[in-house]
Amino acid sequence: MRVIRSLVRMQKLAAAFKREKKRIVLVPTMGALHEGHLALVRRARKLGDIVVVSIFVNPSQFAVGEDLERYPRNPATDKRLLKREGVDILFTPEADAIYPDDFDTYVVPGEIATRLEGAFRPTHFRGVATVVLKLFNLVQPDIAIFGCKDLQQTVVIRRMVADLNLPIRIVEIPTTRDRDGLALSSRNSYLSKQGRKRARAIPAALLAAQEKIASGERSATKIRSLIKRRLLGVVAEVDYVSVAERHTLTELKEISGEVAISLACRIDGVRLIDNIILKVN
Amino acid sequence: MRVIRSLVRMQKLAAAFKREKKRIVLVPTMGALHEGHLALVRRARKLGDIVVVSIFVNPSQFAVGEDLERYPRNPATDKRLLKREGVDILFTPEADAIYPDDFDTYVVPGEIATRLEGAFRPTHFRGVATVVLKLFNLVQPDIAIFGCKDLQQTVVIRRMVADLNLPIRIVEIPTTRDRDGLALSSRNSYLSKQGRKRARAIPAALLAAQEKIASGERSATKIRSLIKRRLLGVVAEVDYVSVAERHTLTELKEISGEVAISLACRIDGVRLIDNIILKVN
Repeated sequence: MRVIRSLVRMQKLAAAFKREKKRIVLVPTMGALHEGHLALVRRARKLGDIVVVSIFVNPSQFAVGEDLERYPRNPATDKRLLKREGVDILFTPEADAIYPDDFDTYVVPGEIATRLEGAFRPTHFRGVATVVLKLFNLVQPDIAIFGCKDLQQTVVIRRMVADLNLPIRIVEIPTTRDRDGLALSSRNSYLSKQGRKRARAIPAALLAAQEKIASGERSATKIRSLIKRRLLGVVAEVDYVSVAERHTLTELKEISGEVAISLACRIDGVRLIDNIILKVN
Repeated sequence: MRVIRSLVRMQKLAAAFKREKKRIVLVPTMGALHEGHLALVRRARKLGDIVVVSIFVNPSQFAVGEDLERYPRNPATDKRLLKREGVDILFTPEADAIYPDDFDTYVVPGEIATRLEGAFRPTHFRGVATVVLKLFNLVQPDIAIFGCKDLQQTVVIRRMVADLNLPIRIVEIPTTRDRDGLALSSRNSYLSKQGRKRARAIPAALLAAQEKIASGERSATKIRSLIKRRLLGVVAEVDYVSVAERHTLTELKEISGEVAISLACRIDGVRLIDNIILKVN
């Protein structure tokens, strides 16, 4: 596995692979890798000739007061894990190479980025879209792989790929969960032992919603209430509960078709997100 | 010369050229071609294996009340001219293919896009950057050619290419002028016969500034005043006169180094821009 820090070197290498007609697959990450990331990497390994994993904790997707500084970083462990998965290139650019002092052009997603996560983190998806486009241009992937855990992110990225005519296929991988159902997230490491236990309420609430729908409930309002009720008293604060069309994340009144149920809440001051995707007849 | 309207076909063709290791050169235009455009095309012919000229009157760079509807369109003449220049591909996408109903992602240039043209056309460079990035992704050029006539546009595009790590070389071509010095522009066709005569004041004012600097003047303020004085009474309204560093377009106090003198003004209600670039010791 080659570890590359230089943007120029990464781009030259990508161009060389393209000339050799190699299929490049990119897995963009912020490091602190867990089994969820490794599921993405394993899919990448199956889909492409060259697997590139990027690790870059992207400052532009954190707002002031968010957890940029304390975001978990485990470079040595990450490297070991990726090597074991047969990754070809670990791309770890420096922040001041990605954002030099005179950096001043952003990719700005529209309406989709103003709702749900975007309502609580107004510049988040601008940062995500910008860095992902930069990584695409540096790594020149044929395929890029994202986790469904960050569902709105995948919708924003798909919108960007379509709107900007990027010749890249986006592949989404289902969320990997811990034994008790909690979605794996690098941010779970912020939780206290008590908080970690209380966090089980999140997948439990989503599961309860899924069961209610399976038993015939079709009112999105009732499902949102059910989830809020299940979280009440367990989590400190619920940012949102959404029952939406899966591909556009527009809120539903009646539940039918491909549906995403997603939520964000805080436990111990730690902000956690989760979602489930259902097909409903 | 192949004429291509389909985005998918253009992108597939570009990918095929890339596989054959052909060097693609793109000349993005809005049509109504004149000798200025043809100078760009001739340079493209020298630089690349495959010359692609795009003709697309880009709605997103026109504000409401600007001249989108009346912008000159001469598709038959354009086609004939490009064929004669040995262009390989004329790419003429439809507006609703470039901007489908659900289009909602823009490339937003920063501070550079707020000044000069940007101060008078606040969404102009957002539209320019977005469509140019889309054309880049559709045509996959190694080189793209722009005219210095739209100097701020070239600065915005260069900033975008650097900020988004696009593997594309930007080449700028000096402004082509009519016999009397007026910069060629598709918008010159809007001028009345009288207006066309009065428009000579624009290159004359720039030339006067150049001569004043050659004779030793180094005060940017004095040069701006000189130009305004020369235009006074001849043009209806001066939007701005700028004496700026050539690569960043930041205004200068003392004239030295690579300097761009640019202006925008109105004659007969027609908005015209022009500039000269000087090296000053």
